[in-house]
Amino acid sequence: MKQLIATTLSLALVGAAPAFAESTVFSPNGSRPSAKGPAQHFTGSVVADPLYPANDHTSSSGGLVTFEPGARSAWHTHPAGQVLIVTSGTGWVQEKGGAKREIRPDDVIWTPPGREAVGRLPCYGRSFAAP
Amino acid sequence: MKQLIATTLSLALVGAAPAFAESTVFSPNGSRPSAKGPAQHFTGSVVADPLYPANDHTSSSGGLVTFEPGARSAWHTHPAGQVLIVTSGTGWVQEKGGAKREIRPDDVIWTPPGREAVGRLPCYGRSFAAP
Repeated sequence: MKQLIATTLSLALVGAAPAFAESTVFSPNGSRPSAKGPAQHFTGSVVADPLYPANDHTSSSGGLVTFEPGARSAWHTHPAGQVLIVTSGTGWVQEKGGAKREIRPDDVIWTPPGREAVGRLPCYGRSFAAP
Repeated sequence: MKQLIATTLSLALVGAAPAFAESTVFSPNGSRPSAKGPAQHFTGSVVADPLYPANDHTSSSGGLVTFEPGARSAWHTHPAGQVLIVTSGTGWVQEKGGAKREIRPDDVIWTPPGREAVGRLPCYGRSFAAP
């Protein structure tokens, strides 16, 4: 089960290459080290795989987070919003004050800036850095 | 085989909802109509599935494009750049003046603004609108 935590990741690509020089940049599978999701952001075991960092042309970044059974995020916000794209499995998301909503592959969820949410999420996602 | 052509898509979500109101927006699988990739942008048959439109907080949008065997994009540029995330199959990308490069699932390719490229691409991608 997967969700983005791009804003909390140390994105290895940023250090590995000069933050997207002005030619096409290939980032092959296996070149971006996985990390365990930190306990202050998750209950249970999750693995975070960075996909791409922000660069000179965009402040957004993307990653893939895999949730083991029972794992979930803490309540959190994204300063500039987040798009989640469910890629496998099933999970749920919940907005503060709302009901849990089951999510399935190819569902897409937009969480606006500052909106507090929680979930177990099998997703490709991208997170927008604060302006 | 899949690649984003978000900038050429009529993104149904934009009309269906008031371009991301200030609460969480769920866009379930099946709610975003597929479209055939137009002949001026592709050789062979491709299917384009919009994932999310730009909104008040970001100018980027995302989509999924499925390439049938032998299909490829035309040479093209992205005015503000593009991130491609390969999700299945194998394909290739090529930058003008460079060699074809084979791509596989979980490879990520950043094409800077204005850089001319072509490919057969099995990807989740997102495209940045021109500033």
